[in-house]
Amino acid sequence: MRRLRMGMIGGGPGAFIGPVHRIAAELDREIELVAGVFSSDAGRSRAAGEAYRIDPDRAYPSLDAMLAAETARGDGIDFVSVVSPNHNHLPSARAALAAGIAVMTDKPLTATLAEAHELSGLVAAAGLPFGVTYTYSGYPLVREARARVAAGALGSVRKVVVEYPQGWLAGAAEGKQAEWRVDPARAGLGGCIGDIGVHAFQLAEFITGLRVERLFADLGAVVPGRLLDDDCTVLLRFDNGARGVLLASQIEVGELNGLRIRVYGDQGGLVWKQEVPNSLTLHTLDGRTEVVHAGGPQLGFDAASRTRTPTGHPEGYLEAFANLYRDFAALLRGEAAPLLPGIADGLRGMAFIATAVEASRAEAGWVSLSV
Amino acid sequence: MRRLRMGMIGGGPGAFIGPVHRIAAELDREIELVAGVFSSDAGRSRAAGEAYRIDPDRAYPSLDAMLAAETARGDGIDFVSVVSPNHNHLPSARAALAAGIAVMTDKPLTATLAEAHELSGLVAAAGLPFGVTYTYSGYPLVREARARVAAGALGSVRKVVVEYPQGWLAGAAEGKQAEWRVDPARAGLGGCIGDIGVHAFQLAEFITGLRVERLFADLGAVVPGRLLDDDCTVLLRFDNGARGVLLASQIEVGELNGLRIRVYGDQGGLVWKQEVPNSLTLHTLDGRTEVVHAGGPQLGFDAASRTRTPTGHPEGYLEAFANLYRDFAALLRGEAAPLLPGIADGLRGMAFIATAVEASRAEAGWVSLSV
Amino acid sequence: MRRLRMGMIGGGPGAFIGPVHRIAAELDREIELVAGVFSSDAGRSRAAGEAYRIDPDRAYPSLDAMLAAETARGDGIDFVSVVSPNHNHLPSARAALAAGIAVMTDKPLTATLAEAHELSGLVAAAGLPFGVTYTYSGYPLVREARARVAAGALGSVRKVVVEYPQGWLAGAAEGKQAEWRVDPARAGLGGCIGDIGVHAFQLAEFITGLRVERLFADLGAVVPGRLLDDDCTVLLRFDNGARGVLLASQIEVGELNGLRIRVYGDQGGLVWKQEVPNSLTLHTLDGRTEVVHAGGPQLGFDAASRTRTPTGHPEGYLEAFANLYRDFAALLRGEAAPLLPGIADGLRGMAFIATAVEASRAEAGWVSLSV
Amino acid sequence: MRRLRMGMIGGGPGAFIGPVHRIAAELDREIELVAGVFSSDAGRSRAAGEAYRIDPDRAYPSLDAMLAAETARGDGIDFVSVVSPNHNHLPSARAALAAGIAVMTDKPLTATLAEAHELSGLVAAAGLPFGVTYTYSGYPLVREARARVAAGALGSVRKVVVEYPQGWLAGAAEGKQAEWRVDPARAGLGGCIGDIGVHAFQLAEFITGLRVERLFADLGAVVPGRLLDDDCTVLLRFDNGARGVLLASQIEVGELNGLRIRVYGDQGGLVWKQEVPNSLTLHTLDGRTEVVHAGGPQLGFDAASRTRTPTGHPEGYLEAFANLYRDFAALLRGEAAPLLPGIADGLRGMAFIATAVEASRAEAGWVSLSV
Repeated sequence: MRRLRMGMIGGGPGAFIGPVHRIAAELDREIELVAGVFSSDAGRSRAAGEAYRIDPDRAYPSLDAMLAAETARGDGIDFVSVVSPNHNHLPSARAALAAGIAVMTDKPLTATLAEAHELSGLVAAAGLPFGVTYTYSGYPLVREARARVAAGALGSVRKVVVEYPQGWLAGAAEGKQAEWRVDPARAGLGGCIGDIGVHAFQLAEFITGLRVERLFADLGAVVPGRLLDDDCTVLLRFDNGARGVLLASQIEVGELNGLRIRVYGDQGGLVWKQEVPNSLTLHTLDGRTEVVHAGGPQLGFDAASRTRTPTGHPEGYLEAFANLYRDFAALLRGEAAPLLPGIADGLRGMAFIATAVEASRAEAGWVSLSV
Repeated sequence: MRRLRMGMIGGGPGAFIGPVHRIAAELDREIELVAGVFSSDAGRSRAAGEAYRIDPDRAYPSLDAMLAAETARGDGIDFVSVVSPNHNHLPSARAALAAGIAVMTDKPLTATLAEAHELSGLVAAAGLPFGVTYTYSGYPLVREARARVAAGALGSVRKVVVEYPQGWLAGAAEGKQAEWRVDPARAGLGGCIGDIGVHAFQLAEFITGLRVERLFADLGAVVPGRLLDDDCTVLLRFDNGARGVLLASQIEVGELNGLRIRVYGDQGGLVWKQEVPNSLTLHTLDGRTEVVHAGGPQLGFDAASRTRTPTGHPEGYLEAFANLYRDFAALLRGEAAPLLPGIADGLRGMAFIATAVEASRAEAGWVSLSV
Repeated sequence: MRRLRMGMIGGGPGAFIGPVHRIAAELDREIELVAGVFSSDAGRSRAAGEAYRIDPDRAYPSLDAMLAAETARGDGIDFVSVVSPNHNHLPSARAALAAGIAVMTDKPLTATLAEAHELSGLVAAAGLPFGVTYTYSGYPLVREARARVAAGALGSVRKVVVEYPQGWLAGAAEGKQAEWRVDPARAGLGGCIGDIGVHAFQLAEFITGLRVERLFADLGAVVPGRLLDDDCTVLLRFDNGARGVLLASQIEVGELNGLRIRVYGDQGGLVWKQEVPNSLTLHTLDGRTEVVHAGGPQLGFDAASRTRTPTGHPEGYLEAFANLYRDFAALLRGEAAPLLPGIADGLRGMAFIATAVEASRAEAGWVSLSV
Repeated sequence: MRRLRMGMIGGGPGAFIGPVHRIAAELDREIELVAGVFSSDAGRSRAAGEAYRIDPDRAYPSLDAMLAAETARGDGIDFVSVVSPNHNHLPSARAALAAGIAVMTDKPLTATLAEAHELSGLVAAAGLPFGVTYTYSGYPLVREARARVAAGALGSVRKVVVEYPQGWLAGAAEGKQAEWRVDPARAGLGGCIGDIGVHAFQLAEFITGLRVERLFADLGAVVPGRLLDDDCTVLLRFDNGARGVLLASQIEVGELNGLRIRVYGDQGGLVWKQEVPNSLTLHTLDGRTEVVHAGGPQLGFDAASRTRTPTGHPEGYLEAFANLYRDFAALLRGEAAPLLPGIADGLRGMAFIATAVEASRAEAGWVSLSV
C-alpha cells in the first residue's frame, strides 16, 4: 500500500509547527511529505524545501502554483496540511478544496467565526476528507479517558475542570512564534483563548462527550500594551447540566505547557496531565485510586491501537500528533476515523472563541454557545 | 514559664476537630487543655472529658458553668477554643469575652455576616486576644511563600489561582462531620464556600498581601437534594488589579483535601500544595525553577521558626495547626504574633462568604467585597 | 484514666531528638513528660527542664538522682525515654531497669553488640516493658504495607529494595547533631549504618515479616578524614530465599531523609516513601496500579487505628513517632502492642550493624546474620 | 542534501524494536528505510517489507541477497541497522562491513565477549562508521547531565546509583519479545544484565565520564526454571575511586521501564528518570534544588540541539532514539558525533556483561573490569 502524499502550506524558516506536522505525518510511514508552499517568499520556500529534503521542484512559491502543478502530475499530493497563521487557514483550505484536495488544518479553524462558517459550507460541498489538529485529543490516554467516560466509569458527569497554563508570553512577546500570536491581524479575534483556550475546550468536550451549552467568559490582557487576551477564565455549563471551569493563561510564569483536565461524575473521577501524559488517574466513589499506564494491559482499543512502544517507554507530543495523522490517513483511504476532529469540531471551536471574546468584551454575563 | 490553660467549647464525641485543636494547642507545650464544655449534654461532656484525660470536675455541662467555675479558681483557664459548629461561634465567644476570657475560634468566624459584625465589635470592646484558626496559614512554606512575595520575588502580582477540591460530599452526606455542614441551620449561609472556600480566600490574601476588591461567584448545589452549595467558582479582582480564580468543591470524587495555590507576578511564580506541604516551587521569568524544602537552609525566619524537625522529616496538618496556637500563646503572653489571623480576617472571611452567596443567588455579576 | 509519666534521659540543649520524643509521647495525651536528666551538666539539665516547662525540681543533675527521687514519690515516673547518644543507652537502661522502671530507647539499641546482648539479658530478667523507637515502623502506611504483605497481596516475596539516602554529612560534620554521629567514641561501631542503615534494615524485616539470614556489606568512609562509614551498600538474603538490597548514605548531596522501600513478590509489588508518607502504591502481576491513601477507607485496622486526621490532611514524622508511644503506653497499661519494636528487634539491629561493619572491614564476602 | 538509505536486519513481524529503529531513523528526515532482511523466512521478510511500505523488491530473503543487490545499484543502502537478537549481531555486522557497508547495531554488541573482540577488530580494520544504540544516552537531559558533570557542577563525583527496574518478566516469559531474551542460545550469556543492566552501565559511564574499574556482581535467576539471570545487583568502583551501585531487575512487579540515575559529587548531586525524562533535578551542597526542563533556556548545546519541541511538549523514547540516528547520520556525512556510542562502548558493555556473569557465577568477589 503506497504512502499518502502531503503538501504543506506554511511551516517555513523559524516555524515550530511545520516540522512538527512533518514528523507527525510521517511517523507511521503512512504519509510522506513531498511538496509545500513553505513561505510566501519564493526563495524562503525553496530553502525550506531543502531543509525538509524534498524534491526542490516541489517547493512552490505559491499555493496556486502548488495546486496547479501537483494536480497535474500522476503522483501529486493527496492532501494539504495548513500550518500557517490563522488568517491563512480559510484561503488555503478554500483553494485546496476547490482543487479537489483534502485538507488537514491546524487549529483554530480560522481567524473569525464568519470564516469558519464559510469553510464549513465549503467542506460540506466538497465532500473531501477534512481534519483539524487538536493535538491533545491524539494522546492515547486522552482516548482512554474518553472511552472510560463513555463506558460509564464516572457515572453521570457533574463537573469538569480543564486548565491550560503557560508562561511564555509573560514578558514581551519576542520571536516568530510569539509575535503573530499577539497580533490581531494574524491571530484573529482571540489571543490566548484562540491559541490554547480552544484546545482546552475541545479536550473537555472530547473526553466527556458532552457539549457546552452556555458560558461566562472573563478574558484579560494582562501584559501592558497587549491587544489580545493573554489570560482567560471561562465558566461552562454542559448540555447535561454539568458545571465546568476552563482556565487558560499565557502569563503564568514558570508554567510550560500545562494542559490538564479533571472530570468528575457521581461515581468517579479522572485526572490527566499533558506534561506527564503516560498515566491516567481514576478515582471511584468508594475511595479507590487507580493509575493506568500507557501501553499497559488495562487499555482499551482506542488507546492501545495508538501506542507504539511498550509501557514505560514514554511517548509524547509528537506521537500524539502522529495519531491524528494516522486517523487522517485512514479517512483518506476510505476508512472510519471517528476520533479525528473534523470540520464540525473546528467550527465549534471558533464559536467558542467568538462567543467568549464577545461575551467578555460586552460583559454580557452568561451567554449561549450555539453552532 | 507556666503553660497556658485552655478550655474547649465543642469537640465532643465524634468530632474530628476537637482532638485536632487539643493536639495542636499542646504540641509545643506552651498550652494545656484543662477544661471544656465538650457537648451540650452533660453526660457526653463528661465522657469527652475522660477521653481527653482532664480533671473530671472540669468537664462542664454548659458554657456558663465553665466560665463561672474557671474564673473563680486561681488556676482557671486563660482562654477558650471554640470548635463547635458555626452557629455556636458567636454565642460562645460573646460569653467568653464577657467573662474576660480570650478566644481562639475555628473558621468561619460565625454563621452570618451580621453575627460577624457583632463579634467584631465585641472583640474591639473587650480588648482581649482573639484568633481564628485558618489552619493553612500555619504551614511553614505558606509563610515562606508570603515572605517571598513580600520581598518581591515574583515582582508585581498579576494572577492568583487557588483551588480547594474535595470529594467527600459527592455522595449522600453521612456522619457527624458531614451532616451539620450541609444543614443551613448549623452551617450558616454557606456550604462548601464557608467550609473550605473561605480557607482558599484567606490563603490567597495571606500569601499575596493583596485584598480582593471585587468578585463574581457561581455557586452550585450539585448533589440532588442539597440545600447549600457544594461546588463553587469565584472570580476575583485584587486591589492592585491582579486577576484571580478561586475554585472550591466537595463533589470532586477522588480529591482528598487538595488545597493548592499558584501565584504569578511579572517576574516569577510560585506553587504550593497542601497535600505535599513540605516543598514550595518557585519560578523566575528567565526560566529557572527552584524547589525550596521545609527545614532547609533557604527558609526565612517566619518559616524556619515554625518548623520542628530537620528537612526531609515531613510535618503536616497538625503541626501547621500548632503554629497558630504558638502564635496565639505569644499573643496571650503579650508578644506580637503578626501572622495569626484575627478578628479582622474572620470578619473579612464572612464578608467573602456572604458576598459570594448573595451574588451567586442573585446572579448579580461582579460585585464589590467590602469590610 | 491517668496519663502515664515519662522521664527523659538526654535531649538537652541543641538536641533535635529530645523535643521530638516529648511531642511524640504527649501527642495522644496518654503520656506526660514530668521529669528528666537532660544533660550531665546540672545547670544545663535545669535549663532544659525550664524549656520543657516541667517542674524545676524534676530536672535532675544525674540519672541516679532522678531514679532515687522519682521512685520515692507517689506520682513518680512510669518509664524513662533514653534519647542520649548511643554509648549512653546501655548504662541508662541498666539503671532504670534496676530501679524497676520501664524503658523506651532510641535506636540503635546500644553502641556495641556485646552491650546489646547484655541489655537483652537485663530486659528479660527485669520483665518490664521495653521499646525501641524505630520511628518509621510507626507510619500508618508502613503498617498497612506490612498487613498487605501478611495477607498475601504480593504473593511470595522475592525481592526487597530499601534505600535511605541523605546528604547532610556530605561536607564537614558540623553542629551537635553531626559531631557525635561521626565520632566512634559516642556513636559506636557504625556511622551511617548505625544511624540510618539500621532503620532501613528494620523496615525491611518489619514490612516483609521475613528475616535476613545472610548479607554482604560494602561500607565506605567517603568524606576525607571520616573515621566511620558514611556510605553503605548491603546485599541481603532473607530466610525464604528472597533477595534484597539495602542502600544507605549520608553523602548524597540533595537527598534529605529519603527512606523508601520497594517489595516485590510473585503476585505483586509495593512502594512506600517516607518523604511522601501518606500514600502507598500497590502493583499486581496483571498490570494494575493502585494508590492507597492515609486515612482512606481501604486501610486495615493497623493503619486506620494510628491515623488522627481525615484523608488528605498530611500526618508526618511526629505522628509516626507518636504511634510508637501509643503502642508503648498500651504495653505499660498491660495491653498488647504487637507492632512496637522491642528488645529482640533492638538486638537484631545491633547484630546487623556489627555484622555489616565487620564483614565489610574484613572483606569477608557473604556472612551469616544470627541473633 | 539527499536522505541516507538504511537497510534493516531483523525487525520482522512481532518485533517491537524494528519499527522503533525505523521511526527513530526517519524522524528527522535525514535517513530513509529502503531495504531490509526482516526475517530469515523469505515470505515473512516480504510481508514485513510491505508493512514498512518499502519497495517489495528490496525486502530480501537473506543478508547476502541484500548486500549483493544493494551494493550493485546506484541508489543502494548507505548502512544497515542490526536489530535482530544478540547472536545475530556479529554475523550481520561482519557481512555488512565486508561489503563496505556502515553498521548501526542494537545493544548488547554481541552474544559473547569473544564475539565482541572479533567485531571490534573488524570495525577497526574496515574503517567504516559504526554505532551502537544505547538508546538512553540519546535523551536531551541525559546529555545535559553529562555536560553539567563535565563542567564541574557536582564537583568531584563520589557516588553513582543507577537502577533499571522492570517487572514484565516476573511471570512466565511469553511472547516473541520475552522468549528470546530468556533463551541462552539467542540472548547470549546474560539475561537481565545483557538486556537492561548494560544500559544502566553505559548510562553511568556516559553521564559521569568515569570508567568502572572493578565490580562485584550478584546475579540471580528468580523465576523458577529460568536459565539466565533476571535480577542483578552490581557494586562498582570507578577509576577516580567513586563508589557505585547498579541495580537491574526484570521481576519487580509493577515497574515498567524505570531506568533512573543519581550522581553525587562533593559539591552537588543530580537525578534523572527515564519515565519522566523531560526534567533533570540538580542539587547543590548549600541545599538548593533546581529543576531543569527539556527545551528550556538553561540547556547547553548538547541537549538543546537534540530537542524538537518547545518546553512543556514532552518528547520521549522515540525522540531519544532518533537522536542517536541523527548522530549516526552526521558520522555518515563525515561530521563528528562525539556522543554517539561506538564500537569501544559496545565492547566495553560486553566486557561488563561477561565480567559480571562470570564473577557472579564463580562467586569471585570483587573483580577487575578491563577492556
